[in-house]
Amino acid sequence: MTTISKTTTSKKRTKRTDTGSISASTVDLGGLLTRFAEPLERELRRAIPTSERSSLYTMLAYHLGWVDAGGRSIEGQRGKQLRPTLLLLAAEAAGGDPAVAMPAAASVELLHNFSLIHDDIQDRSEERHGRRVVWSIWGVAQAINAGDAMHAAAARSALRCAETGAPAEVVLEVAALVDECCLRLVEGQYSDLEFERRDDVTPDDYLAMVDGKTGALLATCIEIGALLGGGAAKRDEWRSFGRHLGRAFQIVDDVLGVWGDQAVTGKPAADDVVKGKRALPFLMALQRLPAGEAARLRELYNLPTRDAAAVAEAIDLMDRSGARRVAEESARAHLAEALRALDATGARAQGGDELRALARFVVARDR
Amino acid sequence: MTTISKTTTSKKRTKRTDTGSISASTVDLGGLLTRFAEPLERELRRAIPTSERSSLYTMLAYHLGWVDAGGRSIEGQRGKQLRPTLLLLAAEAAGGDPAVAMPAAASVELLHNFSLIHDDIQDRSEERHGRRVVWSIWGVAQAINAGDAMHAAAARSALRCAETGAPAEVVLEVAALVDECCLRLVEGQYSDLEFERRDDVTPDDYLAMVDGKTGALLATCIEIGALLGGGAAKRDEWRSFGRHLGRAFQIVDDVLGVWGDQAVTGKPAADDVVKGKRALPFLMALQRLPAGEAARLRELYNLPTRDAAAVAEAIDLMDRSGARRVAEESARAHLAEALRALDATGARAQGGDELRALARFVVARDR
Repeated sequence: MTTISKTTTSKKRTKRTDTGSISASTVDLGGLLTRFAEPLERELRRAIPTSERSSLYTMLAYHLGWVDAGGRSIEGQRGKQLRPTLLLLAAEAAGGDPAVAMPAAASVELLHNFSLIHDDIQDRSEERHGRRVVWSIWGVAQAINAGDAMHAAAARSALRCAETGAPAEVVLEVAALVDECCLRLVEGQYSDLEFERRDDVTPDDYLAMVDGKTGALLATCIEIGALLGGGAAKRDEWRSFGRHLGRAFQIVDDVLGVWGDQAVTGKPAADDVVKGKRALPFLMALQRLPAGEAARLRELYNLPTRDAAAVAEAIDLMDRSGARRVAEESARAHLAEALRALDATGARAQGGDELRALARFVVARDR
Repeated sequence: MTTISKTTTSKKRTKRTDTGSISASTVDLGGLLTRFAEPLERELRRAIPTSERSSLYTMLAYHLGWVDAGGRSIEGQRGKQLRPTLLLLAAEAAGGDPAVAMPAAASVELLHNFSLIHDDIQDRSEERHGRRVVWSIWGVAQAINAGDAMHAAAARSALRCAETGAPAEVVLEVAALVDECCLRLVEGQYSDLEFERRDDVTPDDYLAMVDGKTGALLATCIEIGALLGGGAAKRDEWRSFGRHLGRAFQIVDDVLGVWGDQAVTGKPAADDVVKGKRALPFLMALQRLPAGEAARLRELYNLPTRDAAAVAEAIDLMDRSGARRVAEESARAHLAEALRALDATGARAQGGDELRALARFVVARDR
């Protein structure tokens, strides 16, 4: 079997979040995020060939929570599917029928999952939400295949919008957006791995990296949804909404990684600090602290592991740097920009109100 | 750095050939294979973002032979680009303009190269044509990114046929063929890795695997070229030509791996036997030899390494089994089928004659 070596630096990187915690806190949002669950599930299953064609696809079905490692159907926990929901709401808010956009919604969800399968290999992460990941069961070589097949299935699904009623020219644009987004995802992942080896990463470098690694996909969801919904005339405004939303989402995610309430996030407290993840609060604090304290913070993050005292000291340093306040202000500013852009799209009530609620939730979810 | 462990089984699999040897023997064919070299090169460079956008793309340019590992331009040896050439000739033979099909030709070449980058990781191969492969320079994690980016660039390139003059509906079909072909490639690679662990693989299992791993791409090249050239009415015939050509190509490749003339193939003599690759001659011989001799052949292939005496004995056993004759007959039968199908397409002289020459060469190239 192929295995990869582990190193102590393995936990220091930015993990793509699959937003498992999003709907935990409010009922309204839970309803919103399950509104399209059934047709989306049908479309996703349509996009992945069955294991009768090749047992390769058992790995994909496993990753998506449909089967166990032996290929037997399970009633798994579905992810919250924030990305396809954003896409479908944008299609509706732009004046279109979400059913036309359903194959594109499946496409972005599969693209996200392709990136998770390969990320887990690259990060040497053995578990995700308490479940073993593909490479830890089937080995690295086959997990590469699983991700590659998920990637191809994602690209293929987008093309199916031609069958649900979108004009061929629009479908070509959607397909190009999916491919371009994929390049951005991979660029982000490339930079994230590069940053592991550098000690001079600035908050701006970091934000450019996460813009690719996670922001690009959220922005692409919005743009594709709007395009399929007939919102091409306001494309710049839709894109601006998606970009600012993606940025706000990331910043909040990083704040939660240090200061999040375990009961809300569902992750261990101060998870990013425990793991030594060099995310935004850490990088901002380095810039803002006096040299001596910055050096101490760096030292704490360079330890192979951090005990409770080291975690508390690191959080204290970040607290005193003012990084949290600056980050939260930045997230709120991006939310305001996002909402302004959304207003400028002329979004309809249906879909539009829900997009507004979702955008506000993304930034408010630390409370 | 991420590394992968090596095992003694690592060399026993089917390596995708990048057909570096194809044009070495005949001048006509050399000319044929370089006919589109310049516009294809331009299109390939257009399809890959520059390293100014992200240094991620240095890995892709390195793999394609454009730069050295430090990112400096080199005058590298280009591959023979059999796949895009087949696509462009099919477009021409179907009555179309190869220039319209150029982005699709770049797409299949990039798809092939995406699969090579990931194959090299999965096979733990450190070199290809005497040059270090991407993972052996940048590590496994970044090489996964390089392949993923090449895959996305391949998919995106196909969409550009809408800019060179193909109707949007046809471009959607081309894009779907690229994605479907990619699934077949990955299925083939999955089976190849699975076969490593099995001792009961039949020649039919094996041929089904290589149909996916290499045949599907050749067949897809023909189908896409014909479609873009306006040959949709004879689609089944074009597809049949591609399928039989792909099968003949693979069988000949496997025969050359055991009995090929080093001066023609450019690879070490009996390379597949030295490496213990369980290809068609081995599997056919197992089926045809008396039980005792079959057991001996299996034993020889199970050795961690094979010295000259073991290689000679294994070749002798395969010789006596009649595997070579059966394989060559099968390749000739597929060539005949391919040429019959090509005639049935009503291929024009321009492109058609060259496709015939290329098809014959594929089968005759062991002489």
